[in-house]
Amino acid sequence: MKSEFELIERFKKIIPRKMQGLIPIGDDTGLISGARGSKWLFTTDVIVEGVDFIHGQIKPEMAGRKAVAVNLSDIAAMGGTPAAFVAALGIPKGFPESWIEKFYQGMIVIARKHRTLFVGGDISRSKELFASIAMIGHAPAKGPLLRSGARPGDWIGVTGELGGSILRRHYGFDPRIVEGKFLAEDYRASAAIDISDGLAQDLEHILKASSVGATIDIQKIPISSDVLRHSERSEESQSSKKEILRQPRKGAASLKTPQDDVKRRKCQQRLKHALTDGEDFELLFTMGQAGKRKLEKVWRKKFPRTRLSWIGRIQKEKGIRWMDHAKPVRLPFKTTGFRHFQ
Amino acid sequence: MKSEFELIERFKKIIPRKMQGLIPIGDDTGLISGARGSKWLFTTDVIVEGVDFIHGQIKPEMAGRKAVAVNLSDIAAMGGTPAAFVAALGIPKGFPESWIEKFYQGMIVIARKHRTLFVGGDISRSKELFASIAMIGHAPAKGPLLRSGARPGDWIGVTGELGGSILRRHYGFDPRIVEGKFLAEDYRASAAIDISDGLAQDLEHILKASSVGATIDIQKIPISSDVLRHSERSEESQSSKKEILRQPRKGAASLKTPQDDVKRRKCQQRLKHALTDGEDFELLFTMGQAGKRKLEKVWRKKFPRTRLSWIGRIQKEKGIRWMDHAKPVRLPFKTTGFRHFQ
Repeated sequence: MKSEFELIERFKKIIPRKMQGLIPIGDDTGLISGARGSKWLFTTDVIVEGVDFIHGQIKPEMAGRKAVAVNLSDIAAMGGTPAAFVAALGIPKGFPESWIEKFYQGMIVIARKHRTLFVGGDISRSKELFASIAMIGHAPAKGPLLRSGARPGDWIGVTGELGGSILRRHYGFDPRIVEGKFLAEDYRASAAIDISDGLAQDLEHILKASSVGATIDIQKIPISSDVLRHSERSEESQSSKKEILRQPRKGAASLKTPQDDVKRRKCQQRLKHALTDGEDFELLFTMGQAGKRKLEKVWRKKFPRTRLSWIGRIQKEKGIRWMDHAKPVRLPFKTTGFRHFQ
Repeated sequence: MKSEFELIERFKKIIPRKMQGLIPIGDDTGLISGARGSKWLFTTDVIVEGVDFIHGQIKPEMAGRKAVAVNLSDIAAMGGTPAAFVAALGIPKGFPESWIEKFYQGMIVIARKHRTLFVGGDISRSKELFASIAMIGHAPAKGPLLRSGARPGDWIGVTGELGGSILRRHYGFDPRIVEGKFLAEDYRASAAIDISDGLAQDLEHILKASSVGATIDIQKIPISSDVLRHSERSEESQSSKKEILRQPRKGAASLKTPQDDVKRRKCQQRLKHALTDGEDFELLFTMGQAGKRKLEKVWRKKFPRTRLSWIGRIQKEKGIRWMDHAKPVRLPFKTTGFRHFQ
């Protein structure tokens, strides 16, 4: 079975490049020309019951919220300002209308928060519930943040904390609209993406689109407190992140205690969550040295509640070099991230 | 089970009016402000396998074509110019990729014909195939054609021919983009809608939105040759449309022959197709006396291959008065039209 990405790649090839608008399909949104030099972002995301959420395991308001929020997050990744959306729903026979009403309420609450209009929709019969949202937004005046702009030497930044989306934030995350606009207009990021498939995988999207590689310091990855809470209910919960992956030195292997093993496994588990959990919807971006220095000075004042982490740098050599305390390490897990389509 | 309209009405009420953009939800598209006074149309239509088309009964190219064409038709009904669309697909496990590829090709062919960009999409797993298209377009400079603009005394016009969509045109219709723009910019229609649910029902949408009624001359309804071909393979095929519905005069009833009965039934059948078949995707519009006179003079030259019919007039009194040879008649069938959602 092909992945979502492989299928999208395959179908994308059928569409003539000229038809794809101002940028090729494959970024977080499409881009088209508006009146007098203005540019519009245009994106769509579909959620399907049983794939993206489980009816009965989620409040309808939260499912509706998520359906709109993933689109807002795409606009945020381009540094844009959301303007309006439409919603097409497939509703199975006998599905309670009160559930759908609450789903609408969830869509409305998050859209209103981000001043986004809800201008139309369609409803059809279907075997399973699905909601397909399409959203347009204003591109930033300096042009949208693309995946393809990362250059060797750029710093790699990430907003907020990663991992644990499955535990809670999956539905409740707040799209980084304001942060995205700031990164596009005030302190020009060279590239950006929203983390929907896990940091490792979305970083690869930037690297591939920019034809570069990266060095990542795993100690700098901002691990969500959700992950810590979840994986650290035992006595090791207060242990530091130190030596997450470093293998015991030769000859020292016999010295390690069973507690060390437990600790290492837990640390690895946390890191894996942070690198591969889908749907964090934080922003991953790159920025030159000068911009980074300026941004650092104002970020905390501007966004006191949003953590900013610099996790590594872009390099010319392709691929990702994972570093732990300045030494290269090999991750003991796959970093293919969360796949919606399997 | 509620109809699609009833559900949309119910859910629409949840959305604050201010969030619905420049016009209330319920017209063929939404309307939002663009840069410097420009305005954008925004619409979405979803098609679901088993509801809107049957896999195996339709070529994938035609299904893809239809998915895009219904959106183009919504833009046409507002008198707009399509600009770009995005497509979200739900694909069942094991669904042949070659089918989807051809579906894409169908979307591309019709979009290219109408100079519409294909700027993005999403793919998810689902139990049944569905395709949700969202499209934006430029509103006409004089403002979009709404359902709510019909005024007493206006003439009621319809493009092309009606009925028989089920037989062939269902998938192959060509959206009336050029005609819609013409009606919006050159010879200002007062109201318009595309016929997706059958003439009778879509006329009711205009009447309801405009708080008016109509008188319709059933002799003027342009019945599609598809309907004629389909229902008239017997000897009556050359019979005129005369006296479709007129009841035999009192005392004359005994004079009617069995052939008359057959003829009448066939005529009624044809009219029913023309009034209630869904998905003709012709334009139904209203226009003042002066505009009508001018339009008549140029239509044939401008659109030599698109028939234009004046089927009646708008009146102050609510409801539809069906007329046959200047006498009121009662239709011997329900005119609720084609419902996608039952």
